[in-house]
Amino acid sequence: MTSSTPHHWVITLVCADQPGIVHAVSGAIVQAQGNISESQQFSSDDTGRFFMRLQVQSPATRPELEAALAPVIERYAMASIIDVVGRPLRTLVLASSAGHCVNDLLFRQRGGQLPVEIPLVLSNHGTLRDLVGFYGVPFESLPITDAASKAAFEARVIDAVDELDIELVVLARYMQILSPELCARLNGRAINIHHSFLPGFKGANPYRQAHARGVKLIGATAHFVTGDLDEGPIIEQNVVRVDHSRTPTELVSIGQDEESRTLTQAVKWFAENRVLLDGARTIIFK
Amino acid sequence: MTSSTPHHWVITLVCADQPGIVHAVSGAIVQAQGNISESQQFSSDDTGRFFMRLQVQSPATRPELEAALAPVIERYAMASIIDVVGRPLRTLVLASSAGHCVNDLLFRQRGGQLPVEIPLVLSNHGTLRDLVGFYGVPFESLPITDAASKAAFEARVIDAVDELDIELVVLARYMQILSPELCARLNGRAINIHHSFLPGFKGANPYRQAHARGVKLIGATAHFVTGDLDEGPIIEQNVVRVDHSRTPTELVSIGQDEESRTLTQAVKWFAENRVLLDGARTIIFK
Amino acid sequence: MTSSTPHHWVITLVCADQPGIVHAVSGAIVQAQGNISESQQFSSDDTGRFFMRLQVQSPATRPELEAALAPVIERYAMASIIDVVGRPLRTLVLASSAGHCVNDLLFRQRGGQLPVEIPLVLSNHGTLRDLVGFYGVPFESLPITDAASKAAFEARVIDAVDELDIELVVLARYMQILSPELCARLNGRAINIHHSFLPGFKGANPYRQAHARGVKLIGATAHFVTGDLDEGPIIEQNVVRVDHSRTPTELVSIGQDEESRTLTQAVKWFAENRVLLDGARTIIFK
Amino acid sequence: MTSSTPHHWVITLVCADQPGIVHAVSGAIVQAQGNISESQQFSSDDTGRFFMRLQVQSPATRPELEAALAPVIERYAMASIIDVVGRPLRTLVLASSAGHCVNDLLFRQRGGQLPVEIPLVLSNHGTLRDLVGFYGVPFESLPITDAASKAAFEARVIDAVDELDIELVVLARYMQILSPELCARLNGRAINIHHSFLPGFKGANPYRQAHARGVKLIGATAHFVTGDLDEGPIIEQNVVRVDHSRTPTELVSIGQDEESRTLTQAVKWFAENRVLLDGARTIIFK
Repeated sequence: MTSSTPHHWVITLVCADQPGIVHAVSGAIVQAQGNISESQQFSSDDTGRFFMRLQVQSPATRPELEAALAPVIERYAMASIIDVVGRPLRTLVLASSAGHCVNDLLFRQRGGQLPVEIPLVLSNHGTLRDLVGFYGVPFESLPITDAASKAAFEARVIDAVDELDIELVVLARYMQILSPELCARLNGRAINIHHSFLPGFKGANPYRQAHARGVKLIGATAHFVTGDLDEGPIIEQNVVRVDHSRTPTELVSIGQDEESRTLTQAVKWFAENRVLLDGARTIIFK
Repeated sequence: MTSSTPHHWVITLVCADQPGIVHAVSGAIVQAQGNISESQQFSSDDTGRFFMRLQVQSPATRPELEAALAPVIERYAMASIIDVVGRPLRTLVLASSAGHCVNDLLFRQRGGQLPVEIPLVLSNHGTLRDLVGFYGVPFESLPITDAASKAAFEARVIDAVDELDIELVVLARYMQILSPELCARLNGRAINIHHSFLPGFKGANPYRQAHARGVKLIGATAHFVTGDLDEGPIIEQNVVRVDHSRTPTELVSIGQDEESRTLTQAVKWFAENRVLLDGARTIIFK
Repeated sequence: MTSSTPHHWVITLVCADQPGIVHAVSGAIVQAQGNISESQQFSSDDTGRFFMRLQVQSPATRPELEAALAPVIERYAMASIIDVVGRPLRTLVLASSAGHCVNDLLFRQRGGQLPVEIPLVLSNHGTLRDLVGFYGVPFESLPITDAASKAAFEARVIDAVDELDIELVVLARYMQILSPELCARLNGRAINIHHSFLPGFKGANPYRQAHARGVKLIGATAHFVTGDLDEGPIIEQNVVRVDHSRTPTELVSIGQDEESRTLTQAVKWFAENRVLLDGARTIIFK
Repeated sequence: MTSSTPHHWVITLVCADQPGIVHAVSGAIVQAQGNISESQQFSSDDTGRFFMRLQVQSPATRPELEAALAPVIERYAMASIIDVVGRPLRTLVLASSAGHCVNDLLFRQRGGQLPVEIPLVLSNHGTLRDLVGFYGVPFESLPITDAASKAAFEARVIDAVDELDIELVVLARYMQILSPELCARLNGRAINIHHSFLPGFKGANPYRQAHARGVKLIGATAHFVTGDLDEGPIIEQNVVRVDHSRTPTELVSIGQDEESRTLTQAVKWFAENRVLLDGARTIIFK
């Protein structure tokens, strides 16, 4: 990479909060002849951590940029990501039989709105084979009927993550609970969509619960998968107004739009390195 | 009332659902020379109840209108309300020290946007005396420090309801839990504002809970008061978007707007006879 | 159809407002042994027209129901529609090269959320052939390069409307202006999506206009097609918040979601006979 | 100011965009022993300008902080503001007879939610005297009936701005058009609330226009006052959903809530130095 064609870099940095970080980081950027086009930072009172996300235009090669930042990263003991803006994140999609979230992800990926590449959709049903195939994405289905078949499914997930260099696993209305082992293995890189406005209506049949409780807004929550079901750090939430006349079945249909857009939004932010973990909470640098 | 100056009537009717109700009701309206200017109905699959709300312009006097409707009401064993559109509902406001909900209610009442009259604001603090006084509304404060003073406060509520012909009690951020006896006594005519998007974050300090959980939307819920704390039928809910940078204190401030407008909206609908109970849910005829 | 399997009928009625209409209509419903499951009405102060939409469960056949309603329809000189609830509306989709609205319509149609059947998508580009084909819907493209090819395209629209018994024409980001003759011919049965919050930013490049003006919300408007460009009666509008950092290109991408859901919503309401014209305005019985 | 009690400073900086600015600025902050608690920046492709807003905790006195920043400000030819976080902005409110916006501003100012101090409300009507007086704010009314009385009113505005060290003039539903001279004089420090979603429905009676056009959302726009009526840079906009049943009068009532909260929000951001001008657009650092 010659200096005449600048790269567009994204950098995220996390460390203990203290004075002078911004100056040190911006000094490294100057050294790499970089121009900061986007910059966000946050100091967490809860955890005492400092979070920063930069987009930088620089003629530096990756080794040059890494060399410029290395002393700062070492000095402040930073967790860091240095990546090219817009590089598609390698993403494995898990699904069951509902297609709305999968369709939304694939349609937007193909339209260039979602910086991911999806080498595989893996489902415990065959329902979505044609839809996924239309987008030219490989599809596998492995039925889950008992503990053994569930273990086989999860083994396939683990294999796929390794073989396909997966960076993100998206549960696009995958209606099975992941085993604690798989949750631990995918920690921080698996996103689920829950079809309620968490923490309301955890667990099964949230729309039926919402109907019974007579809520006036229903919603969807995209969150990191953790071993603690429906309790992972929240990435994005949306709601939509409903009234007394809606049956539970209608709530399901209405809620699907919120599920799709909420999940796609969360995946987009994650793929753009805009989602950082701060204990049980997320920092979103929109 | 002569026939040349038609009244504008509001009528609500609730009974077991069955064919022919609308025809019977509209026949009675025709008999009273009424013209239906607004009509809404709902058949609840949950409870098998039929709900109807009408606004009718008619030259009939109240006895004449009641006489026309009486056979229908008797035949279908209807619970009914017949009232004049826009008649101010006699409303007792309970408060503590926070003024945002009280201010919103009083400002809109005075501006003619809220069809209530408020003969008394009763508080367990003296903080709001000036604010309430500015609007020319009587204010009493009775401190609550122990069981005896709490009982005295509630006794005053009961007296005030009787003496002042109160039709609705509004808990405008009244920060005490009503006794089961008072809940029972005010059943169906007391509205509370809870400062969260129920059923998430029941109980105390919902904004602190919301911060800890890292939700991306916070909200407010207006609901009927029942003996089951924060579980009464929901009348209205609103949410507002927040992000990771908000402290619990800022969430409190942001949420106050939602609390005010949610409570005022619920009171307005109730005063207009638009809120009907259907088991644990509400029918809202907007 | 025997009386043991009741039909679910939708009825819309429009006439000059006057007393007694509801009683007359409900009498006809009683005569047809119908039970009203949904009822909405509106009296327009602007035009003096009365609008009513009913859903009725009745064992009556269509001739029986029509016979019961005929005297009422005649007496009040009503414009009326009597249809079966959920019957798919025959819909012609016009498109250009952008696929987001077409994809949304087809995906929801296939998922049973949108009561239409689409016998043809007609485009002035070939871009969407594969997408449309995936959903098993016939696709034709006729390039428009001059007045003659435009006339040929419109002639094909007119033929298709006749041959295929089309009841609704949807302009799903069809980027050509319809001729006055075609507008007149499709009057009241053609819906367009405009990519701005009308009446702001009429005409071309609304997102560029929105950027230049620095608006904080962008939107989309679904409206009936009339000869007066971007001035047809509005059916639905939505907005989404944006900020200063968005480029015109990003506004395009953000706005596409609003376009899709706004158009699909308008089509759904129209197909369910919930959209009635009141002069230059629409009545929407949600 | 000793180093044991750090100030909380807000700094805004605007200059031509170029590399190295952030490093230079953060170096000055380090020199002033400052810790950056909040930082936002934006590079405008439209104007080539760079915008930055910082909140900094530092033990430095104002002269010390200014001395540290001076070389950077000079080197980059920056327009700059250095202020104490939370310092109340001296604000003159202009009003006519409608009280909703004035009430919202005063209530929130008193509640500590709005960092302004209001030494005067000036109105061309006497209607709001009691309301303003309740909040302990001086009130003057000067009727406007002709050109001379209008000139007198504006002369009083100019005097008040000077005498009272006014930093912001808020037109809180002040229903007169400012003269070009006054617009020029108050350029960049006067905010108006327009009761429509601009650029739709400029000029008079926007709710009547909105009703006639049959829009499905109505809104409010807070913008800087310029000589070009209703064309000043937009600061904030909000909308609310309405339907066909709303009369123009009801639209007015519904819209008032949006007007109040939109104006108050714009004033709050301005008072917090979050609003920067970028040509005909605004940068809002929320």
